[in-house]
Amino acid sequence: MTDLQRAAKMLKAADGIMILTHTHPDGDTVGAGFALFHALKALGKRCFVANADPIPPSLLSVSGAERLPVEFEPDFIVAVDVAETSLLGALAPYGERADLCVDHHKSNKRYAGFTLLDEAASSAGEIVYDLLGLLGVAMTPEIASALYAALSTDTGCFRYRNNTPKTMRAAAETMEAGADFGSMNKIFFETVSKERALLLRELYGNMEIFSGGRLVVSFIDIHNFPEDDYDGLSGELRKIEGVAAAVLLRRTGADEYKLSARSNAGFDCSALCAVFGGGGHVGAAGATVTGDLADCVGRVKAAMEAELRRNA
Amino acid sequence: MTDLQRAAKMLKAADGIMILTHTHPDGDTVGAGFALFHALKALGKRCFVANADPIPPSLLSVSGAERLPVEFEPDFIVAVDVAETSLLGALAPYGERADLCVDHHKSNKRYAGFTLLDEAASSAGEIVYDLLGLLGVAMTPEIASALYAALSTDTGCFRYRNNTPKTMRAAAETMEAGADFGSMNKIFFETVSKERALLLRELYGNMEIFSGGRLVVSFIDIHNFPEDDYDGLSGELRKIEGVAAAVLLRRTGADEYKLSARSNAGFDCSALCAVFGGGGHVGAAGATVTGDLADCVGRVKAAMEAELRRNA
Repeated sequence: MTDLQRAAKMLKAADGIMILTHTHPDGDTVGAGFALFHALKALGKRCFVANADPIPPSLLSVSGAERLPVEFEPDFIVAVDVAETSLLGALAPYGERADLCVDHHKSNKRYAGFTLLDEAASSAGEIVYDLLGLLGVAMTPEIASALYAALSTDTGCFRYRNNTPKTMRAAAETMEAGADFGSMNKIFFETVSKERALLLRELYGNMEIFSGGRLVVSFIDIHNFPEDDYDGLSGELRKIEGVAAAVLLRRTGADEYKLSARSNAGFDCSALCAVFGGGGHVGAAGATVTGDLADCVGRVKAAMEAELRRNA
Repeated sequence: MTDLQRAAKMLKAADGIMILTHTHPDGDTVGAGFALFHALKALGKRCFVANADPIPPSLLSVSGAERLPVEFEPDFIVAVDVAETSLLGALAPYGERADLCVDHHKSNKRYAGFTLLDEAASSAGEIVYDLLGLLGVAMTPEIASALYAALSTDTGCFRYRNNTPKTMRAAAETMEAGADFGSMNKIFFETVSKERALLLRELYGNMEIFSGGRLVVSFIDIHNFPEDDYDGLSGELRKIEGVAAAVLLRRTGADEYKLSARSNAGFDCSALCAVFGGGGHVGAAGATVTGDLADCVGRVKAAMEAELRRNA
């Protein structure tokens, strides 16, 4: 029996099922979770999705109004897109009792009774898609929309390296089955919050391209916007043609900045961040820098130039 | 015989083939053109792609180094993604003699001997994909990369409303056949030129959100960057949550600005632009505004507010 078949068998035998999604919910945990929810409902099971954090407005069309009733005591627990129980926040105690985990993260901690892990899958949603057939559930428009949300968001709309021909065909099937992909694409990929627009103003307005166009630094003074609005800002600077590395300083206190470094080939962000007591990976790392802004920017630029020379 | 079969038959019978691509070449005309080129080469035909404008650097991996030899006198001419001969620049005389046109634009002027038009296709590349089977040509990595370029760029990486399940499956096939989609996605969708970054600085830096967040206006003073870098800037402003309409003024002379208006539902851009002697569509329109900057911005804001009230 394959792992997929085993997971399907467990779900078919179960009832009173709690589906766990992770904190800071994204399109994959919500989409995969609700696709599974609708599939289990279609099999006549009692079933609820328990969200570790409130669903963001952009995903409410996927989740609908389903909420965990306070008195629901699960007989079977399945975690979706949750690599470790610490990602469950207040629901962590349920995670520790999880019977099944459906995940695509290599880093999965194997905390569940059985872990259906497919690292080659673009998303947890893609694994739920695989389960549908084995569960004998047809793809309704509700399931299709939930799966499309998972597949599209975890691949940056079919653009990242985790996107595969299989992902594309699964998405094609959800589109045919009634996924509301037009509206979702607009909400997920064509909408910028006002706060984000104001952060972009600071990002580009304070941008300094130096070292012959090989390095970029910028800073953001606004510190009280929703956390999601700050996502990926240093990555926007890394996209600039010819740039080896980009650093964004974001104010976190009176004289304190969070440093995010992102690089293309030939620049080690973790070495740069080590200078400031931080760390991370070659392509992405972070640190905390203290001092007044001009001083911080100056030290960061000098360290970036030194790291660029070291890699030359 | 279907139109597709008829076009395939014409191509099979032809030799000495000139493939025409349009001015301001994009991923579709270049990708579809070179996919067809490689397919016809595989059939042993003499064949050249004649590009109305130089291929931009981002598409050189698709086009390779093939160039029209000065002395090439075609026996058969096929235009790809060219809705009318005026889009052929200096090559227009060849367009007027075109035997075949492969296109997906509803506005196609039917200038060719035979027009293979599929308005439901996401791109001309998708139609060339359909032709491959009828031509009996296998999808080589070169053809696959060219088609992927066409499919991905004309759909904004599978995000726009012209993207269909068929597009997704065709793209999946190109990915399996060796399209270098990872590199192409990075170049097409994850790279921002330095000039573009400087324009984004002006776009967001000069942005003014008004009328309770329903309207946005901005202006760009830089006027000497490559034309491609200005593409879609007003669309970026329209993405801001809650915004009904966005206007970008771009300096084109001492006291002259090009106005680009973009709107979501409930705002008529063509009515707005008519105030300034311009025109266009409900969702996208343009005009020319003259006067000093502060005066132009003031008049545009007043006209936007009037149009918003008219639609309320």
